[in-house]
Amino acid sequence: MATCIFCKIIKGEIPSFKLFESDKTLAFLDIQPLSQGHALVIPKTHGEKLADIPDDYLTEILPVAKKLAIATGANEYNILQNNGRGAHQEVPHVHFHMIPKPNVHEGLGISWPAQKSDMDKLKALAEEIKSKM
Amino acid sequence: MATCIFCKIIKGEIPSFKLFESDKTLAFLDIQPLSQGHALVIPKTHGEKLADIPDDYLTEILPVAKKLAIATGANEYNILQNNGRGAHQEVPHVHFHMIPKPNVHEGLGISWPAQKSDMDKLKALAEEIKSKM
Repeated sequence: MATCIFCKIIKGEIPSFKLFESDKTLAFLDIQPLSQGHALVIPKTHGEKLADIPDDYLTEILPVAKKLAIATGANEYNILQNNGRGAHQEVPHVHFHMIPKPNVHEGLGISWPAQKSDMDKLKALAEEIKSKM
Repeated sequence: MATCIFCKIIKGEIPSFKLFESDKTLAFLDIQPLSQGHALVIPKTHGEKLADIPDDYLTEILPVAKKLAIATGANEYNILQNNGRGAHQEVPHVHFHMIPKPNVHEGLGISWPAQKSDMDKLKALAEEIKSKM
């Protein structure tokens, strides 16, 4: 997409610190890192959300994120992909963060507002979702 | 692994609300959800961190997470996989969360302590990581 910053990086119109490239996947350093080694893995096709990306552009993403985690030497790390502004997505081209978590201050911070479990409701919900898979 | 709760779920020794299953992948509802439809996708092989999972158990994970996102009808959502206690991992068997983000109060909360960018350091780091890929 002409106005997409990540599409421009894919095309080489904007420079990046590339770490890995294949015909379907590109990985490069995040230039506003949360920790040393914070990298992004993106499909080389434009799509805003995970649901927009064809499966054949998704299969290589995690093996590449794994290689990155190993290459950075990170012991603890988070893999994160945000979909939608309300879910903290900043650039509307699907991107997976690999964020080393070297200590409590650096890397990704998470809050976890767990809800009460209602097993009957969960059972009904599982049936509903399964019927749509 | 005999003591792993997710391995027990895979083997059917502990019940779960299953959403999808293949020879390499299992998806089920998180019973302590952050939002309605919060689900987990796991490889059917034991490994604590992403780096421990063979690639052929990683390729199907995102296509399944995508199917889940679509089936739940979530418009905004986060895909998250935590590696290590310090990175908020609770169960030591690789699992990917698909967490709908219906509003600001429910779903995943994130804090983003971005660091200053130093382009020279990033360039040197990219070379170092690339050499280890």
